[in-house]
Amino acid sequence: MKIVIVGAGAMGCRFGLMLKKAGKDVTLIDSWDKQVEEISKNGINANYNGEEVHVDIPIYHQKAVDPSLKADLVIIFTKAMQLEQALEDTKSIVTDSTQVLCLMNGIGYEDILRKYFDGEHIIIGNTMWTAGLEGPGHPKLFGNGYVNMLNLGKSDKAVEGAQEVVKALDEGGLNAIYEKGIFFLIYKKICVNATMNGLCTILEANMADLGEAKASDHIVRNIVSEVVDVARAEGVEMNKEEMYQHVYECYNRETIGAHFPSMYQDLVKNNRLTEIDYINGAIAAKGEKLGIPTPYNHFLTALVHTKEQILGAK
Amino acid sequence: MKIVIVGAGAMGCRFGLMLKKAGKDVTLIDSWDKQVEEISKNGINANYNGEEVHVDIPIYHQKAVDPSLKADLVIIFTKAMQLEQALEDTKSIVTDSTQVLCLMNGIGYEDILRKYFDGEHIIIGNTMWTAGLEGPGHPKLFGNGYVNMLNLGKSDKAVEGAQEVVKALDEGGLNAIYEKGIFFLIYKKICVNATMNGLCTILEANMADLGEAKASDHIVRNIVSEVVDVARAEGVEMNKEEMYQHVYECYNRETIGAHFPSMYQDLVKNNRLTEIDYINGAIAAKGEKLGIPTPYNHFLTALVHTKEQILGAK
Repeated sequence: MKIVIVGAGAMGCRFGLMLKKAGKDVTLIDSWDKQVEEISKNGINANYNGEEVHVDIPIYHQKAVDPSLKADLVIIFTKAMQLEQALEDTKSIVTDSTQVLCLMNGIGYEDILRKYFDGEHIIIGNTMWTAGLEGPGHPKLFGNGYVNMLNLGKSDKAVEGAQEVVKALDEGGLNAIYEKGIFFLIYKKICVNATMNGLCTILEANMADLGEAKASDHIVRNIVSEVVDVARAEGVEMNKEEMYQHVYECYNRETIGAHFPSMYQDLVKNNRLTEIDYINGAIAAKGEKLGIPTPYNHFLTALVHTKEQILGAK
Repeated sequence: MKIVIVGAGAMGCRFGLMLKKAGKDVTLIDSWDKQVEEISKNGINANYNGEEVHVDIPIYHQKAVDPSLKADLVIIFTKAMQLEQALEDTKSIVTDSTQVLCLMNGIGYEDILRKYFDGEHIIIGNTMWTAGLEGPGHPKLFGNGYVNMLNLGKSDKAVEGAQEVVKALDEGGLNAIYEKGIFFLIYKKICVNATMNGLCTILEANMADLGEAKASDHIVRNIVSEVVDVARAEGVEMNKEEMYQHVYECYNRETIGAHFPSMYQDLVKNNRLTEIDYINGAIAAKGEKLGIPTPYNHFLTALVHTKEQILGAK
């Protein structure tokens, strides 16, 4: 199975490294010049659970992919906003039988994926693995994780294809699980991302401070309530009260409460555009299509975009 | 006509000084110790359009009002959140015939006023006069302005009473106008306050920067649209497009666009609680009563309260 990872940032490097170490045929593609240059020259040099680990993996710049490269499986780890351009730039690697696995945060990528891949070949999931980058070619990879995934298509071929991908990733030590309840898990994660990311970014607060401000509860509940309404309309069974309680777990200062979500890091610390369109914006867009009111998700999407524009984020 | 001004901050001092200079019988009441002490000892010493002006006016601390003091007219200039306590502390000045004039920013004060005054004696309005304070007893009063007002009651007595108040204020040079369209003017002002105050406070931006961020338009239009829906349900004729254009005037950098609204000053600069409950909060409360959805005003109210709580505002 020829695996091509599109988006070789921290997570792309983790998946590449683990699969390569397990003997898989892996190629990376990225759009960051320095990353491509460093990995071409020196391979990936990772701090992997405290040990220095080196692997050589072929890598192409997204704008200069070898036209003879064809993928059996594409794993996508681009930034949300860069997905469409990355797929356009790399479309020569896709054949009639290429499968695609999308584990990116957020929702609403299916419409973009369908432009480049057969719906029976799309696999959706999420992952609890984490990864950081100390510099070009130098990921820092600590702790354990797993990957949940499910084929979007309904055919036997779609099921078999996804199960082969599960097997390949599992052989790479990635703890892959074929998960029929994947949409529940995705929407459950969205409940957290749709509240903590945008609100902590707008208020420049950590999650515990946000939760301890009693007035935030009205907003948090309305956002989560809209997410659940959309999920239900898509056939996913969810309980609102259970989701509120799930979000409240973020407020615990002893565990993750003192943490600032990644969107805060992106916009406030690094002046970068956020993934809000694939979190609250995607809920608002789905709500509009389905005739479900989602004013809180709409408002927060527009508010984060307004802050991006005021700060001149790029 | 015995006039008592409850809330002798910058605006209370302006009205007190102008009415007193015109020979009216004016008494001040305030809750700020230093202001009461200074004005008791040295009177008001104002920078009045560039000239030093001195007037002596009797002043009482809100907690120590002379029990024999009775008002024909009470003019209210307290902070919104302090209104009810001020009325409770000073209720001994109110007789069966006492009129009350409320020119405070925001809406929704009527319910509080009705607890202390006969509905036929309540006069509602707004003012374009401005005022600043350089220190206790030292207001800085520049420029020109006017006052619009209308009786809430429908009786002849209510009309006559309000017209007497117009006459008294006009004699004080305050350019008072008996304005039948007062509710249109109040809601028109709310359109500006409900957008600029809360959004500039949350985003820590001036009005021009807010307006130039294109994503803000979705929020601004939805907030204004809800305000107009509520106003219409209360019988006030308003045009949405006209109100959007009115709000857009705030974005002009050549006029007022570089200005940070007062709510930003209150919360971000001075760490004080805001008047959000009497602006967006009042629209949301009226919407709930009238069965009109006001999610954008609800969200912004909760967001400002959340920021107050995170910052520990007092």
